Amino acid sequence: MKAVYYQGKGQFTVGEGKVIPPQAGEVRLKVAYCGVCGTDLHVAHGAMDARVPTPMVIGHEMSGTVAELGAGVTGFKIGEKVVVRPLDNRGETPADRGFSHICQKLKFIGIDSPGAFQSSWTVPAFTLHKLPEQTDLKLAAFVEPLAVACHDVRLGDIKKGELAVVLGGGPIGMLVALVAKQTGARVVLSEINPFRLELARSIGLEAVDPSKIDFPAWVKEQSGGSGADIVFEVTGAKAVALGMTELLCIRGRIVIVAIYPKPVELNLFHFFWKELQMRGARVYEAADYERAIELISLGALPLEKLITRVEPLEKMPDVCHELHGNPEAMKVLIDCQT
Amino acid sequence: MKAVYYQGKGQFTVGEGKVIPPQAGEVRLKVAYCGVCGTDLHVAHGAMDARVPTPMVIGHEMSGTVAELGAGVTGFKIGEKVVVRPLDNRGETPADRGFSHICQKLKFIGIDSPGAFQSSWTVPAFTLHKLPEQTDLKLAAFVEPLAVACHDVRLGDIKKGELAVVLGGGPIGMLVALVAKQTGARVVLSEINPFRLELARSIGLEAVDPSKIDFPAWVKEQSGGSGADIVFEVTGAKAVALGMTELLCIRGRIVIVAIYPKPVELNLFHFFWKELQMRGARVYEAADYERAIELISLGALPLEKLITRVEPLEKMPDVCHELHGNPEAMKVLIDCQT
Repeated sequence: MKAVYYQGKGQFTVGEGKVIPPQAGEVRLKVAYCGVCGTDLHVAHGAMDARVPTPMVIGHEMSGTVAELGAGVTGFKIGEKVVVRPLDNRGETPADRGFSHICQKLKFIGIDSPGAFQSSWTVPAFTLHKLPEQTDLKLAAFVEPLAVACHDVRLGDIKKGELAVVLGGGPIGMLVALVAKQTGARVVLSEINPFRLELARSIGLEAVDPSKIDFPAWVKEQSGGSGADIVFEVTGAKAVALGMTELLCIRGRIVIVAIYPKPVELNLFHFFWKELQMRGARVYEAADYERAIELISLGALPLEKLITRVEPLEKMPDVCHELHGNPEAMKVLIDCQT
Repeated sequence: MKAVYYQGKGQFTVGEGKVIPPQAGEVRLKVAYCGVCGTDLHVAHGAMDARVPTPMVIGHEMSGTVAELGAGVTGFKIGEKVVVRPLDNRGETPADRGFSHICQKLKFIGIDSPGAFQSSWTVPAFTLHKLPEQTDLKLAAFVEPLAVACHDVRLGDIKKGELAVVLGGGPIGMLVALVAKQTGARVVLSEINPFRLELARSIGLEAVDPSKIDFPAWVKEQSGGSGADIVFEVTGAKAVALGMTELLCIRGRIVIVAIYPKPVELNLFHFFWKELQMRGARVYEAADYERAIELISLGALPLEKLITRVEPLEKMPDVCHELHGNPEAMKVLIDCQT
């Protein structure tokens, strides 16, 4: 079996991997596809070397089938289609208040422990979610990022008829916009890159270039003078964080989806003046995975159009380098079936 | 009758005021006491000259009695004890979504229109809340700032048994801590000024000097490794805003009570990592006024100890200049009965 090993300092090697027999409570999977995530790109550029053990296989946006069951694992059949929710919460304590998905000692599988850019992957059985039999395994590689979007939208508590603004049209921004639309809200995607704007429109999203208009004034006008009910911040850009509060109505809500490694300025006067609310959102919970699987099963979202291309496993390192800072790529899937 | 007029550029004059007969829908009050608020101090130092018309009487933390009823006003009797909720929402539109108390065209009475540092004050009847007959009119001058605290605590959705940290032990911080304690939460007031620390302890609050200990570590230890459930930010200090996210547990909440005129840095990584929530809080709603009146009627709070002193109306300008930057003063009441 083949595997891609991250060696540190931005270097990968592709080679023969070890088939790891599943221990008690574990399942060995045959990996079908694994998407390349922004986090993988961070790893691939050495930005997470302090955290990622080496050599190690990374990757977590996967789909696959059950290949082998460890002792005591029930409820799964060989060949069954599954995805992994890559959260290892076995270090959880009562101090985490039941928020298993972000517990203090959470290990993220594929960053803190071996991931899915390999043809055979052994994981704890508790991480698995079953897929309906007819599920397309390419689309199923979207379950993980789509669950992120489902989590963001759920925490945003968005309601039918509201005006939602999604700031940033990268892969997660697109998925947040698509999921938010499912609630019956009007969703406007804000993006400055022409390629992404066109792609967004081609999948049925209302997309606006905020650099071409007075965007806060436009949002206000579109909402009868109120402002947006909710903003999803998915750009990670300082200037956007500073300006986002201007877009909102009284008691408007912000969901911070982007990761800001360093402190950034926010307009707390707007928080005070309009009694704004903001919350951070990180990964997903089991319900978000189930919702993502449901949306994919129903064929509710035009996910095929977000697949930039599919590459074989040995191309994964090249893909990481090509995708870095390339706004014209959305989701590249790695075919791990070798 | 006497009145204190703000003349702009930090200057006041004290002189004979005009008794204004109440028009239809208005009530003329005999003002008893009016507290000096931080906002009054801002006005008194010229910081709000762009907003405050001159010459004009300011002041809004008042208590008094009904002196005269305008046409069509029912439900009030001459001599009845009342307080004014100084929010004029007559410019409210549907774009405000029903949030009258912070509607876009809100006028704050005592800043945007004449206030209470005068012995006779004419206001719209809809701003009045009745006080129980036995209410001490000195304590009733606390209804307005106490309603701020009731609003902050209500929006914080604080629950019995939670650990709440109030950052900043000025008048509003003290009131927030006292009201928060009423919910059955454990409340810790964080304050660096020795006078305020001692005062806080003398009114039964648990008060800590964060400069003397590793405060985040202490909070974590006090909460079994979780962190605080909720933080009320009442200092308005940049460094405190940047550090506050460290104090919180997973899914912890922040209520921004302080006014930050300029953008400040926040640690959005903590928002992401712990899925923190933050909301701004501004003024109060009718329910907060009723709760504040109830707390005062029940004698539930040691408010007498927060009265630094009572001064006659003509001393109001001097008080404003003395209070500026003086952490040893809490609430100075102006006796407007002349």
